[in-house]
Formats: sequence, structure tokens, C-alpha cells
Amino acid sequence: MTVKYELKHVCKQTGARVGLLHTPSGTFETPIFMPVGTQASVKTLDVSEIADVSEGLILSNTYHLWLQPGTDIIEAHGGVKPFMKWQGALLTDSGGFQVFSLSDIRKITEEGVHFRHHKSGEKLFMSPEDSIRVQNSLDSDIAMSFDECPPFHAEYEYMKESVDRTLRWAQRGKAVHQNKNQALFGIVQGGPHIDLRKYSLEETLKIPFEGIAIGGLSVGESKTEMYTVLEALKPHLPEHLPHYLMGVGTPDDLLVGIENGIDMFDCVNPTRLARHGSAYTANGRISIKAAKYEADLTPLDDACDCKVCRTYTRSYIRHLFKAEEALGQRLVSYHNLYFLKQFMRSIREAIQNDSLSDFKNTFMKQFYAK
Amino acid sequence: MTVKYELKHVCKQTGARVGLLHTPSGTFETPIFMPVGTQASVKTLDVSEIADVSEGLILSNTYHLWLQPGTDIIEAHGGVKPFMKWQGALLTDSGGFQVFSLSDIRKITEEGVHFRHHKSGEKLFMSPEDSIRVQNSLDSDIAMSFDECPPFHAEYEYMKESVDRTLRWAQRGKAVHQNKNQALFGIVQGGPHIDLRKYSLEETLKIPFEGIAIGGLSVGESKTEMYTVLEALKPHLPEHLPHYLMGVGTPDDLLVGIENGIDMFDCVNPTRLARHGSAYTANGRISIKAAKYEADLTPLDDACDCKVCRTYTRSYIRHLFKAEEALGQRLVSYHNLYFLKQFMRSIREAIQNDSLSDFKNTFMKQFYAK
Repeated sequence: MTVKYELKHVCKQTGARVGLLHTPSGTFETPIFMPVGTQASVKTLDVSEIADVSEGLILSNTYHLWLQPGTDIIEAHGGVKPFMKWQGALLTDSGGFQVFSLSDIRKITEEGVHFRHHKSGEKLFMSPEDSIRVQNSLDSDIAMSFDECPPFHAEYEYMKESVDRTLRWAQRGKAVHQNKNQALFGIVQGGPHIDLRKYSLEETLKIPFEGIAIGGLSVGESKTEMYTVLEALKPHLPEHLPHYLMGVGTPDDLLVGIENGIDMFDCVNPTRLARHGSAYTANGRISIKAAKYEADLTPLDDACDCKVCRTYTRSYIRHLFKAEEALGQRLVSYHNLYFLKQFMRSIREAIQNDSLSDFKNTFMKQFYAK
Repeated sequence: MTVKYELKHVCKQTGARVGLLHTPSGTFETPIFMPVGTQASVKTLDVSEIADVSEGLILSNTYHLWLQPGTDIIEAHGGVKPFMKWQGALLTDSGGFQVFSLSDIRKITEEGVHFRHHKSGEKLFMSPEDSIRVQNSLDSDIAMSFDECPPFHAEYEYMKESVDRTLRWAQRGKAVHQNKNQALFGIVQGGPHIDLRKYSLEETLKIPFEGIAIGGLSVGESKTEMYTVLEALKPHLPEHLPHYLMGVGTPDDLLVGIENGIDMFDCVNPTRLARHGSAYTANGRISIKAAKYEADLTPLDDACDCKVCRTYTRSYIRHLFKAEEALGQRLVSYHNLYFLKQFMRSIREAIQNDSLSDFKNTFMKQFYAK
């Protein structure tokens, strides 16, 4: 095994779990939030800052890196981690989600997906084998199986076909997976259909993956729909494998995911919000561009001890956004990721103390009070 | 005196001088290059990085800060330095240059300048007294006198009138200058006309300024024209005051300025070039976006020991630019300013060793070889 999950404690209030994720590049406490470095860059931050605001495990996107700079350049550096000089651990997604969400799909065949480049329009093709080979050469610690990610509310019949195709793709990808220093995780699909989700989970677990991911959520469905799927899968998630909920990362969704046994998360939200001037605080999100912060000499979040909050005033950061100074996006990106890191630490502590429900109630009241 | 210049050594080869600039916020070796933080931000860099890449003395622009966030907000923080959390020293320009270069001038009167905001079109007015009062409240260590900066090749008659008006403005500004912790420097104008330049210098020196600046250069004239003015003024610059050449900062111009007795420089060039992917190296400027750097695993500049060159490859930085990742602009901005800092250190060393001509010959051959 390249990656190993070690269960440490299950919260008596919620069934949420704390554990250790052992990877070739380090051991990480879970539940963990992974900042997203789509193009081998967590937007605006340098590697020393990524180390500050993460637990040491981040994500990069195979689709983007395959297109720019391409695998040759990354292989010349020895993988994505040396390419971006990241000293920690890295997970790459399969490219599947981006192929389905960003590009102009031409045709999905049994063989793979024909599509056009999201910017240049160039004709491209990706098979499950291609995805695994690309991830092999990206040399991430954790690679993801290539899945189809249909719209959440696709017809039941289509979703069934798609789940079966994704299972066949998972087997094909597993068969060509070569990198001995890289774990491979399978992905559960099935949209809102609980029977399909359970079937997808059960069949995926027959393939010797080292982790199990839930895909196709946070793609536009309601929170109730997402939570229903998570609750239905919870009792069936295998204890010995890490559970990864892909693309999810708002504070409320993190809490519900964790209550339902999830160990790993990633989301572009904290950095995307930051670039629009939206900052996390103990009392919820604030838009730093708002006029009321013009002369506010307090930090972004009084309760935060990150270097941004220890240094700058809301008034100064608002000025940076009003003056269109790039430093503003950088400072809020740093803070938002740091905020989530501390949030996840508090959650792990609450699980250890068998008090995650209490923590959640207090947090939700304070964060979503407005 | 708030600011004091202490002469340490004059280069026997060139007459260039090394000295100490004593300011309320620290003492700095000269010649010095001041990075520009136009809107209280050296673009993309946080204050700890500004400290890395500067000698501790930077510049901000009065025109921009007056318009955004305005003096009230900056006064609430106690000045620009606490506003941006800058621990070093700060010089503010007068706003004159920006009024004349950025805005839509409506009318120049004896009283001051009527103009329109460079973005909103709002009607505005700035007098010499306004400029000084704004700079007083910005609380910089060094304020600049409000000058008219006409086009370099304006008619002789107009330039003469303008020089006289700038002298009257200088006296009016000096009369209202209140901040006891702030020095005030006068500015020499006169375009290419040596007689006007000398007259402007002589008359400006009659006002008890604590430093003398040369303005109206690097505004589109040829290098020969700039150098001619500098050479003509050199014998007349007072030994006991610091000499500041405004807005100049390419390596060749820095060398010529320093040979002609200049102690202080500022320029947006290193950061502006950086944002377009142009990086300084010992062998001249390179455009990091060029295809030839696609798989180049060496640092931006082999001879540089900045954190960017110690960390990242040209190939990675090129990728950031190709992928439109903001980190690219940040890394090159940091490097370019660091490069100039080291360049200025080498120059000061050469002056101390009476070998600035030798240094210049070697540097120019290597840097401008292509």
C-alpha cells in the first residue's frame, strides 16, 4: 500500500472520525482540507505561504497541467511537486471533472472522451489510460480514477449507463497504473439516485483502490440533495480506506461531510472568494469592498492569528481592492485558506472530544447568523 | 534639519559619491534605488518582501493616495507607513508629475492646476499648498515640492515661464510645510535648456530645502538629452544636500546618474517590466515568456541569490505566465527589485574602491551585449 488510513477516533456525538493519512510524502491528520493549486500554483501564493495555510497536502488539476505546460516539462522537473517546489504531498484529480465541466464535449465513447480545448478549441481526446499515464508522470502521491461526471439531474437510464462505464474505466485505469509511489483512488458517481450511488460504491470497492472518493457533488444540486447522498453512503463507506468528498469546501458542507464520515476535501472556494474580496471571519463572510470597512482599523478577522490578520487593517485591504492592487487578492487568499485550516483543526479537536454536534451548533449560529 | 546628507567618499575615477542619508526613519547608504509603491503597495509584494528587496526606503504617490483612499483614511492610520505597515522610510512625490502625465489638464493657473480625474473624469484642483498639506498628512519622511512638469520639448518661452511658476510654487509650498518629522525637497525643471536648468537649480537652492531633485527627465527625451542635462548640472549640485533624480531607474541610466553625482532614484520600471514577464539577469533582460525557456531548469538569474532564484526554475515561471497565474508577476517583481538592490550595492562598493568606470564598462558589456 502506498497510502494507508489509520483510524484514531470516532466522535460519539456524530460518528465523524479522526485519523491519520499516511502518504509517501508525509502523514496528515484527517479530516483534512486540501487547497487547490489548479495549474501548479495556489493562486497568488508562493510555496512558503502554501505551507503556512495548508496541512501539507494540496491538489493539482491533471486536465490543466496536461495542456499547460504538458507532461514533458513536468517530467523534466521530476513531477509537479519539484516543478512548483512543493515540499509536501500532492493529490491530482483525473481530469474527468474538468473535461466535463470546462471543455466543449464532442463525444463520449466507451474508449474515452473527445472534446475541444476550453480556450483554443483544439480537438483533444482523453481515455482512462491517458489520465492515469498523465498522473503517473505528474508523480502525485495520490491519483484519481478517470470518471464520467454527468449533470446531477441526468436521466436515470443515462446515469446508470454512465456509472457502469465509469466502473469499466476505473478497471482500465487501475490496470495501467504503474507509479509505485502513487496511490490510486476510485470515485463513486450516481447523481441523486441512492441505489446507483450504493451500486457504484460497492462495485468500485471491488477494485483494489487505496481510497474512495465521492464525485458529482457540489455541481449545482441543492444542499439537501448533497446531504441526502452523503447520509445514504455513510454506513457503507469502508472503515479502512480514506473517504474523499471531491470539490466540496464551504464551512457548512465541510461539517456535514465530516459528520458523514468524510476525511478529505478540496475546493477552490476559499481562494476564488478571496479574489472577489470575500473573506471568512468567525462571524461569517464579509465583502471587504463594502463601504463600511473604509475606515475599519481592525484585522479581517479579530479571532485569526494569520500573518495577514496580525499585520493589515480591513481599511488597508479594502483600499487594495478599490485601487485594484493585486496584493489585496493575495492577502485575502492567504487568510481564507488559513481560516479553513484552523477551522479543520477545531473540528478534529471536537471529534476527539466527542463534541462535534456542539461545535457545529455554536459555529453555525455564529458564522451564518446574518 | 529632518534629513541630513553625510558625504563618505567620492570616486576618483568618476566623481560619483557614496554617502549616508539620515532620515527620521533610518539611515541609508547612497546611491540608493527606491522601489515605487504608488498606491501604498509595491505591486504584488507584501511588506516583508518589500523589506527584502529594498534598502528600507520606498516611494509612494501623493496623487493616487489623495484620490484613493484619501487623506482621512490614511490619517486615521497615522500616515502611509502605518497604513501599509511599512517599517522603513518613505518619500512621497508631490503629485505634480501625475497631474501632468495621467490626468486631463483643464487649466494651469498661478493658483494651481485644474484637471480631471484620470479614471472618473471628476473635476479636481491642486495647488502647491494642497500638495504639501496632503503630504503632511501622509506623513512621509521626505516630501517633494509641487512642480509643473511640462513636456520636455515645450517652447523655450513656455519653459521659462513654467520654471518661474514652479519656483513661486516652491516658495508657497515651503511656507505651509508644517510636519516637523518630514523633510521637503525642491525640484529642478527646465527641459533640455541648460541655462534654464542652471537657473532653476540656483533659485531653488535659495529656498531652504533639505534635498534637491532633478525632475522632468525620463519623460520621453533621448538618453543623450538626459545625460547632457545631468552633466551640465553636476558641477553645480551642492555637496551638502542629497541629489535625487526622479523617475529614473534603468541600469544604464542609474550608472550615468551616479557618475553625475546623483544619490537617489526611483522608477516603476523593475516592477512594470516584471508584470510583462521581463526579468533582469547579469546578461541583460530576458522575456521569460519566450519559448526557449520552456524547459529551462535554471533560475531566472544564475548569479542571483534572491529567494525566487534560489527556489524556482525559468521553466516554472514561464509556465505561470503562460497559464496567466498571478504568482508569475509576483516572483519576477521580487527578483527585479532584488537585482537592482544588489546592483546598487555593487555600485557603492565600486565607488568606495574608486573603480566605478571599470565596473560600468564590465557591467555594460555583459548586460547590454546582445
